[in-house]
Formats: sequence, C-alpha cells, structure tokens
Amino acid sequence: MKAAIIGGGVIGGGWAARFLLNGWDVDIFDLDPEAERKIGEVLSNARQALPHLYDKALPNEGKLSFKNSIATCVENADWVQESVPERLDLKLKVHEEINNFAPKTAFIGSSTSGFKPSEINQNGTRAFVAHPFNPVYLLPLVELVGAPQDSGLILESIGMFALNIRKEIDAHIADRLLEAVWREALWLVKDGIATTEEIDESIRMGFGLRWAQMGLFETYRIAGGEAGMKHFMAQFGPCLSLPWTKLMDVPEFDDALVNLIAEQSDAQSGSLSIRELERQRDSNLIGFMRHLKAQNWGAGKVIAQHEQKLHAKIGSIENKKITTGKGRVLPSWIDYNGHMTEYRYGQILADGVDELLIMAGLDLSDLSQGGSYFTVENHVNYLSEMKLGEEYHIEARIMAFDDKRLHVYQRVYTENGSCAASGEHMLLYVDAKTRKVGGAPKQIMEALNQFAAYHANIDIPNDAGKVGK
Amino acid sequence: MKAAIIGGGVIGGGWAARFLLNGWDVDIFDLDPEAERKIGEVLSNARQALPHLYDKALPNEGKLSFKNSIATCVENADWVQESVPERLDLKLKVHEEINNFAPKTAFIGSSTSGFKPSEINQNGTRAFVAHPFNPVYLLPLVELVGAPQDSGLILESIGMFALNIRKEIDAHIADRLLEAVWREALWLVKDGIATTEEIDESIRMGFGLRWAQMGLFETYRIAGGEAGMKHFMAQFGPCLSLPWTKLMDVPEFDDALVNLIAEQSDAQSGSLSIRELERQRDSNLIGFMRHLKAQNWGAGKVIAQHEQKLHAKIGSIENKKITTGKGRVLPSWIDYNGHMTEYRYGQILADGVDELLIMAGLDLSDLSQGGSYFTVENHVNYLSEMKLGEEYHIEARIMAFDDKRLHVYQRVYTENGSCAASGEHMLLYVDAKTRKVGGAPKQIMEALNQFAAYHANIDIPNDAGKVGK
Repeated sequence: MKAAIIGGGVIGGGWAARFLLNGWDVDIFDLDPEAERKIGEVLSNARQALPHLYDKALPNEGKLSFKNSIATCVENADWVQESVPERLDLKLKVHEEINNFAPKTAFIGSSTSGFKPSEINQNGTRAFVAHPFNPVYLLPLVELVGAPQDSGLILESIGMFALNIRKEIDAHIADRLLEAVWREALWLVKDGIATTEEIDESIRMGFGLRWAQMGLFETYRIAGGEAGMKHFMAQFGPCLSLPWTKLMDVPEFDDALVNLIAEQSDAQSGSLSIRELERQRDSNLIGFMRHLKAQNWGAGKVIAQHEQKLHAKIGSIENKKITTGKGRVLPSWIDYNGHMTEYRYGQILADGVDELLIMAGLDLSDLSQGGSYFTVENHVNYLSEMKLGEEYHIEARIMAFDDKRLHVYQRVYTENGSCAASGEHMLLYVDAKTRKVGGAPKQIMEALNQFAAYHANIDIPNDAGKVGK
Repeated sequence: MKAAIIGGGVIGGGWAARFLLNGWDVDIFDLDPEAERKIGEVLSNARQALPHLYDKALPNEGKLSFKNSIATCVENADWVQESVPERLDLKLKVHEEINNFAPKTAFIGSSTSGFKPSEINQNGTRAFVAHPFNPVYLLPLVELVGAPQDSGLILESIGMFALNIRKEIDAHIADRLLEAVWREALWLVKDGIATTEEIDESIRMGFGLRWAQMGLFETYRIAGGEAGMKHFMAQFGPCLSLPWTKLMDVPEFDDALVNLIAEQSDAQSGSLSIRELERQRDSNLIGFMRHLKAQNWGAGKVIAQHEQKLHAKIGSIENKKITTGKGRVLPSWIDYNGHMTEYRYGQILADGVDELLIMAGLDLSDLSQGGSYFTVENHVNYLSEMKLGEEYHIEARIMAFDDKRLHVYQRVYTENGSCAASGEHMLLYVDAKTRKVGGAPKQIMEALNQFAAYHANIDIPNDAGKVGK
C-alpha cells in the first residue's frame, strides 16, 4: 500500500510516520527545502514512541521517498493526504492537481482544521476531511467529514480511530471545542486574571486528567450521581444565564496580546526546548495509553484492537535460535540508580516465557477451555546494567519438560551483544477447570520437543541448573 | 488537626475523604438523612483509590463524626469547608453561621463553582474560595481566590495543588473554560452535528489526552514548532474572525434539549452504573498519575512531593519482625490468568528490599555522594495465587552481609496469613563514583547487624539457600 503526503509540516510528517511505521510506502511532496530534515525529526520522534504502545512488533517499515511534484507523488497512491497551510485558495489549487493525477480509486483526505468538504471541493474535486491531532503518530483521533465508508477501515488498519461527523460544519467538532477554550483563555490573559502557566495548571491538574479517559458528558453523568444526567443538567443549566463567560465578545488579537502571551509562554516553558517538550509529551501519552490499553478503555481500546491484528510476532526461530523477546528500554523502566529497574528484568523475562508458550501453540486469549502454565519458580542473574533506550532481545532454551513441568532458560542480550541477565523458569501446566497439575495438550508437547531438539547438543549454561533441583 | 465539612454531597464527601485519609479528624454537617450513606460510598471509593497513588503509606485515618448543627460541627476546627448547593442565599446564611461559631484562627473555604468571595462575604463574613474538582480525593487542583497565604500550605499537606487566582472573577478559571466547552457542545447536540458520545470521543481520543499532562498554551507552543509561540499565534489568531463557533449566542435550555441529551447519555453510558463508571474513572486517574509521578511531571510532581513528606513508612519492626512492604493487589497487576502477574511479585519484593535499605539508613533520594546497593541475583518461589484487591505484607530476614554483600530473604504473606511467595536476593554495595564493589557505610553495617540479630536463633527457611552458593 502507498500513501502520498502533500505538505510535510508537523501534521504531514506525523501522517507520514503513522503510515510508514504501519508498513506503508510513503511518498512526500513539499516545496520547503527543509522538508526532509523536518520530517526526519518527526519520524525520529515517532520511531521512539509508536512501537512502545504495543506488545507486538509493528510491520516492517515501508519505503520513504521525496518527490518534486504533486503529479509524481500521487501516482499509484492508495491514500492521498493533503496537509498544506490553512488557506482556501491554496487548498483549492492543490486539490485540483491531486484530482488530475491521483488514481480514481485513491482515497483523498484533507487535514484541514476548519474548512468544510463543500468548500474544498467547490471546483469539482473529490476530497473528504480527515482531520488528525498532533502528534499524529500517537493520538488515535481522525475526524472524518463526507468520507467514503471504507476510509474508516483504512485508518483503523494504521491504528487510528475514525470519528464520522454527521453534517459538515466549520471546524468540525474538536476544534470548535478548542476554539471555545482558546477564546475564553485569551480573555483571561488579556484581563490579567491568569497567566498562560496558571491556565495550563488549571487544566492539567484537574479536568484535563478526566478528559483523557472520559469526555464532557460521561464525566458530568457521574457528577449527577445516582439521580442521573437530567438531575445534573437541572443544576448546571441555569448557569448559561450567569456571567460565567466573555464568549459573547471577541478579544482584539493585537500585538500587545500576542507579545503578552509569547512572554508568558517563554517564562512558563522556555527552560525546555521544543524537542524536549515533545519527548516529554510523547512519553506521557505512551504511559496514559498503555494504562488505558490494560483497562481496554477509551484510546487504549483502539491500541488493544490494533495490537490484536498485528501479524508480526515478537518471537521467531532462526538458525535453531529461539528469540522470545525484543524491544527497547522505556523511560518508565529506569530507577533512581539511572538504569533499568530490577523487576523490569523480571517483566521482560516473563513476557519472553509467554511468547515461548504462544510459539508452542498456547492460546493466551482463551484459556477458559483448556489450561495454562503457571510459574512456580524464577531465578534471575543480573549481569550488566541496561540503559534508557537500549535495544535488547531475549533467547530461550528448553531445559526439560513433560506434560506437567516446563523448565526454561533465557538470556537477555543488549545491542552490543553482551548478556545483561539470565533467567531460569519452572512452570507447571494447570487445568483451568480442575486447577490440577498435568495434562498439557499433545501439540504443545510436540512443539516443545522440537524446540528442545535445537539445543540438544549445546552445553548447558554455567549459571543454569539452580532451579527445581 | 480537625476539618469541618458543611454539606456532604459528592464534593463535600470528597473533601472529607481527602482530609480523613491524610490523618485529619473530620466532622460533617448535612441535613440530608441519606448523608451518612452517601459519604460512606465516597469514602469507600477513596479508600480504594488514594493510597494507590503513593509508594509510602498514608498516615492513619482520622476520626469521622456526624454533627447535627453547624455550631457543633465547626467547633475547634482548623479548616472549615462549605460545599452546599450553588445558591447565593443559602451560602450567605451558612457562612453567617460558620462565622459565628468557628474559631477565629480557622480557615474557612467555600467550594463554590461560580461565586466571588465578595459575593459570599457581602454580610461581613470571612470565607475564601477553595474550589476543588471531582473526584476531590484524587484530583490535585484547588482554585484559591482571596485566600490567606497559609491555606495553600495546608492544601499541599493533604496532597493537593493550590492555584492562587490573582483577581476575583465569576467562575474563577477552570469553570470558565468548562463553560465555554459546555456551551459549544450544547449547540453541537442541539444542531444534530454530533451525539454526546461522539463529542466525548472527539475529546478523549485526541486533545483530552494532551491536556492531562500539558495545558492549552504549552501544547500550542509545541505545535508552533521551532518558530515558537508567536508563530503559532500568527497562524491561529485569524481564526477568531472565522465562523468556528456559535458562542456569540446561547442555546435555549428547554425540555427538548435536556431530554435529547439525557437520552443520548443513557445510550452512551447506560450499560454501566454510576458506581462502575466511578471505579473505572478512578482506576484510569490512578494509572495516569502514577505514570506522571515516575516522570515527575504535572500532577505527578504533586504526588511525588507529597509522597516525600509522608512520615509514615511502609517498613516497620515489631517484636523483632521486620516488615518491608504492605499493600493491596492493584487492577493493573492482574494477568490473563486472573491473578497477580508474575513480574509484579518481583516488583513488590524489589520494593521490599528498597524499603529494607531505607530502614538501614540508606538515602535513596541522594545516591550521588555515596554509593548504592545493586541486585545481582534474585530467586523467587511462587507458592500461591494473589487476587485483585487482596492485601499483603512482606517480612524480611537478613541471611548474611558484609561491607560488599547483602543476602536477604523475604516472604509475601496474604490476608489469610498464608505465604504467597518467597524471594531471596543477593546485592552488592557499589561506590557511585568508582563503580567498584565494597565500602558500605558503617551506620548501615550497624543497622544490618541489629536486623540480623533478630533472627539469629530462628531456623533458616526450607526454600532459602539456593542463591549465591
């Protein structure tokens, strides 16, 4: 599959990363001579971030090319995404050209924040609105307006959440809400009620945390308590007539206001570079979404569904070498000593054992019918420190097994080939219904038998053999 | 310290929980005959939630009493918090009574969403605005208006974040922003552009995730990229004149609109009870804030600072028994088998070893000067399953030590007294600068010596002794 990205700023670059890291080839057209460097930076962020949402590997990255015309860029494209600046005359011109050269079967999305499809297509073109949110490589939301039905499926296949909007309207949905907050916030700064930093704290210390997992209405439904939504509205409704807002008027956007906000923003965030802020933001978003994934809630549900569909497995067997894990040390795994904290070794080793069981044919998603392996003993040797961002992989060896027991030995290797830790694991097969030990299925025994044969003639490691003696 | 809570709804109950769980005594006055039951439910939620933000124990819970008059409730109070319904006549009456009976030294806060201090105090009372956010026992934000300086310190001492607002204004800051979104959202529903569920998705799949960790301005600063905040505003500013909003008008809040929203909200969230929604919300907020704590960012910074000040330690020594951990199995610790996942045993055991080191006098917050212990080997025996919500504690025993090595044995006990796991740990003392082994400080050696003596005459456990042979 091939995506054509027209306009390679922060948003276009984010789209490029989202497609590329999900295995699509991506062609980019942008007149800016700096486009390649800028997109390189977005891509570098995305490569550090997106894979950490999932516990399975993403597909192999697609091929990235820069083109010097819209015509060559959109050639053979399955999806064309326009993200040029928010000027209607420019968008009209670009979409005319896309329309002339893109395949008739291609989906043509516009990242416009505010324009309606009827405005963009006033010269007979066939684009729809596909409005994403920065960082596009992490946040799932895409607002679709006037889009063909299958476009949503394609967005889901690259891990996004398509929100179909029923009627076209200026600024769609989310940007209307953001515009409302923006206007009120401008008044608060202009009137000297609060600084940009104080306004930001009033959001992220309170309702911002709520909105990362439930929106406006579900939050208020809870606030209404057992009496429900009608009760809440009866309480809150009359406030519409109170002077709680200056929204009936628009602040004058003059140089004084622009300077005031720029100065306050510098004082608030100037100690960190934009790159540092981006990395902090991405790390936080990953943390939130991984938590939501474990809860199968909100944005985490989107991540979990995408993960289920990922074909690529972490585990692999090559040259009789059984790899049961690979990844990179995440920021939240670092402890006060500045290296990967102790129990995270246990986590990646435990995940490795799970992967081995999956490779042997155990279906971890449906254990109610049969049984499962329970770990009864672990032994970890910590051989070297692991640092932030360091890549690692895990190799496994079956030490012994029968239909009750499974004895596995694993080694964690870092980028430079050294062994950072070894783990030895004794597991028992337990029937899900009787909770008694034994009776592991034949096909799993056969797979384990094959795995064990790979290492039959290799010496037993020095540090193995202390478990289950 | 004693808090008097006047009005025991969701907000008053949240305040009560926040104070109680931070060791304050709490007296409550509410005319509702159901108040005791309702506050009991908020407290039950809070007890399941707040302690999980921290890795140290909160102080022992204070004493909770229900009073039948404002006069007896505010007696001897250090802090009085009024959370009665949002009607000015009612607030005036209540504050007159508080003013007559509360100690002159008491802080008197009002949870009002909209009224200014000058309105509440028009009859000569001395309240200030202390506006919290639901759930009060988890979200840190309190907006202070017209408050004495020390009030912020008290709020910090119960784990909250005090935002001082410079000038009094209707609805303070956050509720002005919420009111703006609420108005625009009402238009979107009324005009049939989106349902309540679609609006909620447009928030929590996109900008809501951003706002849980950076607010409006810091997020836009990033969007402006290297060109900075002025560049962003030059792009976004002109939108103020575009028809991106219907905020210049107010939707009529008639029965038709109320019914439309109530029906859509039922369709969206009706499959879960309010209690279930609350638990899901709390679990998500805990997950976000724990992640932010690890990053020392935003709300997590508030949690981390409060944690540092918590006097109560997890670790304790009683009757020569060394307790190095206690807690409850959290939802995110459960795996596909329905019990506590394997590596979490490793985590609580590793935390236990850290606690033991703290008890022996090691300062984990400043290792740059001296040195620290590094774990080189762990051995865990998994003896029984641990279920969601189950309480546990960990007991430790020093097996052997010198100025290089420390050999510790720990057992995890569950509520019913059975041993769920044992862990054996070999650690080496490493000098922070030379990264060489040895030279553990004398006072730590002395503490370990004392600990070891407690068990000198007790048999070595059966499952110990396999490590470091």
